[in-house]
Amino acid sequence: MTTRFFGDIKPAKYEGPDSTNPLAYRFYNPDEMVMGKRMEDQLRFSIAYWHSFAWPGGDPFGGQTFERPWFGDTMKHAKHKADVAFELFTLLGAPYYCFHDADVRPEGKNFAESAERLDEITDYFAQKQQATGVKLLWGTANLFSNRRFMSGAATNPDPDVFAYSAATVKKCIDVTKKLGGENYVLWGGREGYETLLNTDLKREREQAGRFLCMVIDYVKKIGFKGTILIEPKPQEPTKHQYDYDVATVYGFLKDFGLEKEVKVNIEQGHAILAGHSFEHELALADALGIFGSIDMNRNDYQSGWDTDQFPNNVPEMALAYYYVLQNGGFTTGGTNFDAKLRRQSLEPEDLLIAHIGGMDCCARGLKAAAKMLEDKALSKPLAERYSGWDSGEGKAMLSGKRTLEEVAARVVKDGIEPQPRSGRQEYLENVVNRYV
Amino acid sequence: MTTRFFGDIKPAKYEGPDSTNPLAYRFYNPDEMVMGKRMEDQLRFSIAYWHSFAWPGGDPFGGQTFERPWFGDTMKHAKHKADVAFELFTLLGAPYYCFHDADVRPEGKNFAESAERLDEITDYFAQKQQATGVKLLWGTANLFSNRRFMSGAATNPDPDVFAYSAATVKKCIDVTKKLGGENYVLWGGREGYETLLNTDLKREREQAGRFLCMVIDYVKKIGFKGTILIEPKPQEPTKHQYDYDVATVYGFLKDFGLEKEVKVNIEQGHAILAGHSFEHELALADALGIFGSIDMNRNDYQSGWDTDQFPNNVPEMALAYYYVLQNGGFTTGGTNFDAKLRRQSLEPEDLLIAHIGGMDCCARGLKAAAKMLEDKALSKPLAERYSGWDSGEGKAMLSGKRTLEEVAARVVKDGIEPQPRSGRQEYLENVVNRYV
Amino acid sequence: MTTRFFGDIKPAKYEGPDSTNPLAYRFYNPDEMVMGKRMEDQLRFSIAYWHSFAWPGGDPFGGQTFERPWFGDTMKHAKHKADVAFELFTLLGAPYYCFHDADVRPEGKNFAESAERLDEITDYFAQKQQATGVKLLWGTANLFSNRRFMSGAATNPDPDVFAYSAATVKKCIDVTKKLGGENYVLWGGREGYETLLNTDLKREREQAGRFLCMVIDYVKKIGFKGTILIEPKPQEPTKHQYDYDVATVYGFLKDFGLEKEVKVNIEQGHAILAGHSFEHELALADALGIFGSIDMNRNDYQSGWDTDQFPNNVPEMALAYYYVLQNGGFTTGGTNFDAKLRRQSLEPEDLLIAHIGGMDCCARGLKAAAKMLEDKALSKPLAERYSGWDSGEGKAMLSGKRTLEEVAARVVKDGIEPQPRSGRQEYLENVVNRYV
Amino acid sequence: MTTRFFGDIKPAKYEGPDSTNPLAYRFYNPDEMVMGKRMEDQLRFSIAYWHSFAWPGGDPFGGQTFERPWFGDTMKHAKHKADVAFELFTLLGAPYYCFHDADVRPEGKNFAESAERLDEITDYFAQKQQATGVKLLWGTANLFSNRRFMSGAATNPDPDVFAYSAATVKKCIDVTKKLGGENYVLWGGREGYETLLNTDLKREREQAGRFLCMVIDYVKKIGFKGTILIEPKPQEPTKHQYDYDVATVYGFLKDFGLEKEVKVNIEQGHAILAGHSFEHELALADALGIFGSIDMNRNDYQSGWDTDQFPNNVPEMALAYYYVLQNGGFTTGGTNFDAKLRRQSLEPEDLLIAHIGGMDCCARGLKAAAKMLEDKALSKPLAERYSGWDSGEGKAMLSGKRTLEEVAARVVKDGIEPQPRSGRQEYLENVVNRYV
Ligand SMILES: [Co+2]
Ligand SMILES: [Co+2]
Ligand SMILES: [Co+2]
Ligand SMILES: [Co+2]
Ligand SMILES: [Co+2]
Ligand SMILES: [Co+2]
Ligand SMILES: [Co+2]
Ligand SMILES: [Co+2]
Repeated sequence: MTTRFFGDIKPAKYEGPDSTNPLAYRFYNPDEMVMGKRMEDQLRFSIAYWHSFAWPGGDPFGGQTFERPWFGDTMKHAKHKADVAFELFTLLGAPYYCFHDADVRPEGKNFAESAERLDEITDYFAQKQQATGVKLLWGTANLFSNRRFMSGAATNPDPDVFAYSAATVKKCIDVTKKLGGENYVLWGGREGYETLLNTDLKREREQAGRFLCMVIDYVKKIGFKGTILIEPKPQEPTKHQYDYDVATVYGFLKDFGLEKEVKVNIEQGHAILAGHSFEHELALADALGIFGSIDMNRNDYQSGWDTDQFPNNVPEMALAYYYVLQNGGFTTGGTNFDAKLRRQSLEPEDLLIAHIGGMDCCARGLKAAAKMLEDKALSKPLAERYSGWDSGEGKAMLSGKRTLEEVAARVVKDGIEPQPRSGRQEYLENVVNRYV
Repeated sequence: MTTRFFGDIKPAKYEGPDSTNPLAYRFYNPDEMVMGKRMEDQLRFSIAYWHSFAWPGGDPFGGQTFERPWFGDTMKHAKHKADVAFELFTLLGAPYYCFHDADVRPEGKNFAESAERLDEITDYFAQKQQATGVKLLWGTANLFSNRRFMSGAATNPDPDVFAYSAATVKKCIDVTKKLGGENYVLWGGREGYETLLNTDLKREREQAGRFLCMVIDYVKKIGFKGTILIEPKPQEPTKHQYDYDVATVYGFLKDFGLEKEVKVNIEQGHAILAGHSFEHELALADALGIFGSIDMNRNDYQSGWDTDQFPNNVPEMALAYYYVLQNGGFTTGGTNFDAKLRRQSLEPEDLLIAHIGGMDCCARGLKAAAKMLEDKALSKPLAERYSGWDSGEGKAMLSGKRTLEEVAARVVKDGIEPQPRSGRQEYLENVVNRYV
Repeated sequence: MTTRFFGDIKPAKYEGPDSTNPLAYRFYNPDEMVMGKRMEDQLRFSIAYWHSFAWPGGDPFGGQTFERPWFGDTMKHAKHKADVAFELFTLLGAPYYCFHDADVRPEGKNFAESAERLDEITDYFAQKQQATGVKLLWGTANLFSNRRFMSGAATNPDPDVFAYSAATVKKCIDVTKKLGGENYVLWGGREGYETLLNTDLKREREQAGRFLCMVIDYVKKIGFKGTILIEPKPQEPTKHQYDYDVATVYGFLKDFGLEKEVKVNIEQGHAILAGHSFEHELALADALGIFGSIDMNRNDYQSGWDTDQFPNNVPEMALAYYYVLQNGGFTTGGTNFDAKLRRQSLEPEDLLIAHIGGMDCCARGLKAAAKMLEDKALSKPLAERYSGWDSGEGKAMLSGKRTLEEVAARVVKDGIEPQPRSGRQEYLENVVNRYV
Repeated sequence: MTTRFFGDIKPAKYEGPDSTNPLAYRFYNPDEMVMGKRMEDQLRFSIAYWHSFAWPGGDPFGGQTFERPWFGDTMKHAKHKADVAFELFTLLGAPYYCFHDADVRPEGKNFAESAERLDEITDYFAQKQQATGVKLLWGTANLFSNRRFMSGAATNPDPDVFAYSAATVKKCIDVTKKLGGENYVLWGGREGYETLLNTDLKREREQAGRFLCMVIDYVKKIGFKGTILIEPKPQEPTKHQYDYDVATVYGFLKDFGLEKEVKVNIEQGHAILAGHSFEHELALADALGIFGSIDMNRNDYQSGWDTDQFPNNVPEMALAYYYVLQNGGFTTGGTNFDAKLRRQSLEPEDLLIAHIGGMDCCARGLKAAAKMLEDKALSKPLAERYSGWDSGEGKAMLSGKRTLEEVAARVVKDGIEPQPRSGRQEYLENVVNRYV
């Protein structure tokens, strides 16, 4: 007894690389083993409620293009939406989903009513999770769409908005816990500014720190076992967003003593907007010990805004999973598609095809990454390149056993004249191309 | 007895806003009082040796355009260069200058000879400082031009390059101290990577931290009183530079416990390359307590690389000095022109005109900034906008006296529904335009 | 008998540079003479209906922030909106306005009803123009917001959309003519593509050419005296827009033989998005003989999308008006504010303040530009720089009297060795700063 | 009897996809047939002399990293360089090469001596071409490196520089003809400006047009059969380059009536700098009938300058060759690597490995593109999408048989209400991923 939104379409199956069936997987084969785990358990795919079910297809120059039977303001609409959403998850065989409060229930006349509605719809989700086996990767609060958040949530000049945001996040954590969510994400879409002229940057930063401390205290108190994740983004909607990139979030966490409590959810598109490659952000988060989860959706390199497209460039994705796997793979995190259909992709089928294509590219990237790791294709040359640091004076200097003067004296005494060695970039790029 | 490089040109004088003399100041009036200090003492102008005296006018598609009598590889050339440099400082009435080791002496056949030459030329500088009253704002080491640094200095895969860099920095700190330098700057032009494929990001970050700790230990030991400054830049020459921006440097300093020991030298052009406004970086450094000094040279907004142009947009400069003054003004820092002539500006006169124009714009921006501060033109509306945090529940929440559950309970109990208030951006922009 | 939307606010007056009244002009003084014309007649300010009256304050991550009594779907709402709009024009003393069909009337149940409503509301406008003296700078059609245009208007794969667009443009030209509009603008927001994979670039280009030819035939036939303008923009909402920039539009016009029939409306923000400065686009349009009008709204240099902000940087604006004036000033064109309030600027007063600030900056920029022209501050050095081309071999070569071989022979025979001369960029930048 | 620069390395062979030999081809198999031609004849690879043999490894912050035995200022060095270059071409099995005058001979004391040296070295090339079978894809003149060109070549304010440039281009065309070059390329690295303040844009554009007309007259007169190509680039080294992109070049050619005489050489990196995708520029050149040749070297998406890297992203390259093949493939054009080693890639072997990797990626992209075309994987859905234009009113409108009024009348009469159809972007992206 389905909604019939997807008509007669059957669950997507793995058919192998030669399949030309647009509704089948060519690479995603859930039970196939990759580096000692089932592919499904390595990738931990998650579908985002907002883009696929709540977004009407608008952009800054045009309104709704999608016509969905569940668009409307009642709880009945909300449940219809949930029915179709879980059908999508099931047709795709996706083990996880994610949502904001605002995606899943109509706004109430006040906070209390909004909260009641959230309780009602998430109880409905709980039944559906039970019935389908689909799990919640993470929950989150939408603190940016409603006009009350126009000047920020935790970083609003008005403490009432801070309070309202705190209440909202508490509620969203509660339902995330209820649903067994494995993470909770904070994305500060309005935690930033449009102009410094009306902004007390220092004070707003303190507000943000205080807010996060309150959240951490709360999750400890209630025994929420999931990971708290910040999702960095440099800008858009704001001119400047405080959680600019991984390095910025790290400095912020250090400042408030939270670097052990919070990790990052890194989105490819946000990395690009911040002037980085995706793999840079992943490698840095790993180096800093704060890697958590990924939003695997790309930006268009020729567009200066967040296009949230389904990923499709396998060589890039292979490098991304390379750093994920090198870091030991996901623990509570996963591969979320924070991706939306292009607004011209009107058909129900497009929703399936887009996710299938994205999942397939991820699977292909993952397999390439695993093979590179197993072959030590990159790690062996890397270890050799830095081998001078593993012993002797290199090791002594790095471990703090030498002073500047001692090192300087040795340079003069030994007449050290370092000889450059090839960085072999093209060779290594060719090596990667053997795998993708 | 001058070099005659500048012919008969006389020292630049203040002639007031109506002057059309291209070699006179219209706004820079050293003795005029601005916010309780002489303008000269507020601005603390510094001239950069490298761009004005060492750079031959090349770019990636063309070689030398400048023909300077001091171009050559001997100590005689180096002294001729110094003679002209101090003539420029004097003609401009600039109180400070800055240099790298590689700007001022020809490279020796080995480290020891390079060091001897640095001693010799800086002894010559000491005499010239004495004779002219010009002082050293900061010294620094060039750890990026020579091919030995092609894969990094402190972050090189080869520990010998780390050692060579350590010896070089020690030497440069020594001569900076000898010359009474008020700061020492570290800019890590090659401390980054071209490709992650050949880079151990985590290890290189540790190398950088270790290096900086060694430097701090050393300056403490020798009693160097100046400030140690890191100059952030996101990229160029490398694809990624570790000292990306102020926020990134802060996280790095926190990680190595150096956030009290090191400050930042912020360059407008580098702020732009990192996707920020200059005033953002200044305001953030102030908020984080690491503001040190500025490089007042702009980028071209339509060029994707560091153009290091003389500043000329007064409204932008007024906002920059607004944050400098709000932060209490410079202590050991100053306004350095890390700016080069366009490579088509061949004449000796161009060197003077460019600096005079830049200094004049700074003076004009400073005066506008001071007036805005004195009038509380921006600070009064700002204080009002955030006044809800100064007492009551706002204050209680911010100071850590409320838990998430308490705040949430109050939202429900009091039926809090925050009402948006105008951010007044256009009004504030118009206010600024009253001053510039 | 007003709508009272603006309360008791009185028409904005010129109060001179020292005024601190946020609702008064400091530089815009309509009757003051600038280069032989009244300032009002030089600047020809126009207010855009869409941003100020039709836009609800949404962005890609948030919905409506503005609450306006005229938001609604009835003709009554439309007339209320018109009442307030003409009140704004009058309070500002703006001589012109602009609109799209979709800004001013609710969409009808079909094309015919939409057209009737457009007739009705524009009859209402005609009365208001009569009563207030406000005139129509240009009309235009919104061929991008409705979902029927999602894949383009004239360049849609579906000829029915081409037809619908043709009918819409015909109707909008008709009402523009009726209202005495001095120009008609075409902005192709969806005339481009999201992906080449589904796009026949060549065919779409031909569709666009055919469409424009039909438009030109029509305006000639009906005796519309206004100028037809294309507004270039490189992208957004689409990934690529066919009217990328001035140079691209020129090639397109040449291809269809329309370079004498059509001119360009250049927007500062679109110039920036295309990688140009505003003055570049103005100078180029002048050189190509297709300069028409300007949209004087800026982008934020740190945002990669079209922010349509009110202009506020006077030095930049002075250069823009420099090229407008050098080109002889506006004929049918003018200075339109295609600018929207920041979505946090909620108050009626903000609408006035934003426009007043923008108009004042324009006036200030215009006056600086006029003075530079009158003083030949830039044009004299320019003429000298190129003076070699005015006679002798320079003139002969440029006028086509020399072949490549003749010139080559002369180089060898005369031993020509060109000597570089200073480009004097910094000098010229300083000269500009004397005027702004 | 070789130079031994590459030691014992043997010519690169095709070893098939499973090879792990870094000096063998995995996909480039010259004799394999692709769409009716040998792969070698489809790809027409060319090696660039400048990056591989003349560039010392400098960047804006560092000097020479490469130590090559042929670096030096004598004709003997020049011939040694030629020996190694032809060894590289031969080891790679590349059928073509390209050069600038300045790459291959030391500058003489005057124009005449420079020309004599060019004659001498190109006579030497002629012997080597004969001996090896390597051919010249194109010749070109370096009109940007020497300081005489600092303010432009054809667009210089000084007519003597125009003359010198004309003589240089004549000479370079002569030697290109002598060597059987199949094209001649004009890249205007300094044909643009650093600041509009010192630039007469209109006059410089006329100078450029006159120059090009002289060139076309000359090649006709001497019977040069090759194609004249302009290589667009938006900026760098200049702030603005007149040959910004394909669309801009087209407008320029139309203006001077040269659109049948001149084609474009499109570089991937320059497309990116101009805000386009490579395939956009290719598709547009095809649509405009001016497609000529390609420079297959990529930029780094996170760097704002021209990095001229060897290509390595196969999915992107497949789309590029898709448009090349769709356009009928190359005629006189080819695939040139205007690519340089990273400056840390010091070893002779790196030169080979970089080219082999690039050629292999091209081969792989070409094969994928050919298969897509043969399967009509993209062209069939495309034809269907636009099929409405092939008959009936669609065809009538497009062929100019309908006026605006007629179309408008039909819309009303027939009550046309266009219904949007899915753009299927994700589906098409997945289709492409079946081939790459
Ligand atoms: Co995103
Ligand atoms: Co995301
Ligand atoms: Co810089
Ligand atoms: Co600097
Ligand atoms: Co715009
Ligand atoms: Co506009
Ligand atoms: Co290039
Ligand atoms: Co090229």
